[in-house]
Amino acid sequence: MAGIIQLGEKNPKAGVNRGVAVVDFFLRIVAIIATLASAISMGTTDESLPFFTQFIRFRAKYNDLPTFTFFVVANSIVSAYLVLSLALSISHIIRSGSRNSRVVLIIFDTAMLALLTSGASAAAAIVYLAHKGNTKTNWFAICQQYNSFCERTSGSLIGSFGAMVVFILLILMSAVSLSRRH
Amino acid sequence: MAGIIQLGEKNPKAGVNRGVAVVDFFLRIVAIIATLASAISMGTTDESLPFFTQFIRFRAKYNDLPTFTFFVVANSIVSAYLVLSLALSISHIIRSGSRNSRVVLIIFDTAMLALLTSGASAAAAIVYLAHKGNTKTNWFAICQQYNSFCERTSGSLIGSFGAMVVFILLILMSAVSLSRRH
Repeated sequence: MAGIIQLGEKNPKAGVNRGVAVVDFFLRIVAIIATLASAISMGTTDESLPFFTQFIRFRAKYNDLPTFTFFVVANSIVSAYLVLSLALSISHIIRSGSRNSRVVLIIFDTAMLALLTSGASAAAAIVYLAHKGNTKTNWFAICQQYNSFCERTSGSLIGSFGAMVVFILLILMSAVSLSRRH
Repeated sequence: MAGIIQLGEKNPKAGVNRGVAVVDFFLRIVAIIATLASAISMGTTDESLPFFTQFIRFRAKYNDLPTFTFFVVANSIVSAYLVLSLALSISHIIRSGSRNSRVVLIIFDTAMLALLTSGASAAAAIVYLAHKGNTKTNWFAICQQYNSFCERTSGSLIGSFGAMVVFILLILMSAVSLSRRH
């Protein structure tokens, strides 16, 4: 909005906002790595059991369960969004006074947080079922056979839940920046 | 922060903020009803099948599946939070200039959005499984037997997903209010 580059030394509040913008930039990079790692580790999960009958080869892939496919898609979308958002994040480091773009970031960050949480929680519900099973519904714990499949899918949740925490921090920092500015 | 009550007629920006605060208040009431309805309709789901053997009575309750228990807990927590947040929402209608409390609301709204999304998505993943089953993992579709149980649990998701949309709107409006004020 204001085309003038404000220098931190002249305006202490702008200096604080620039510091927040730099932290914002690095948190976004952390979140990119976390979501990308989640998507890749889930997307490459594929276990074949060492024994097989004449007709059936026992094999577990991530896309046997639609929820895991959704998890990979959600993480990929969030990861791509984060790469694009880096441009706005850099512009906030240079022009610490802009506020319209901060509002845009808050809105998209919130939507992406919802998408990421949705994918991670749905996958967590299925992973829990795979580990524990459910006697009432006769759903058996498949982890007894597909051990490494279960470990891989459980592990890939970590990146997503980490990125969720980062997103909450990002929204918090954007809100503080918006309230500080005057 | 500013102890002075600003009147909308004197300051057009404060007037717009007051309008936003009134909408915020009503959206919160809508979200309370939605999450409460979700929690109650899921929490009272209990189906007994009309046939039974000598030893087993076929019965499906929501807490047979831990994910549904989490769904009820998450919706109840969010609903309780929303009732408490009405106090801050009312204070924003009266004092449309306050900004610290708006930042507090954004942060808590974001955290509650994450909790609600998490509960709703995990429950949706299980409901999907109950409807479709999964042949690869030998998890059978229980909806063929427990018809009304499945309809009830599927229906109770609607309130939660509606409340998620309301939360995203609330965060958006808070962000716009913060950026408007000067």
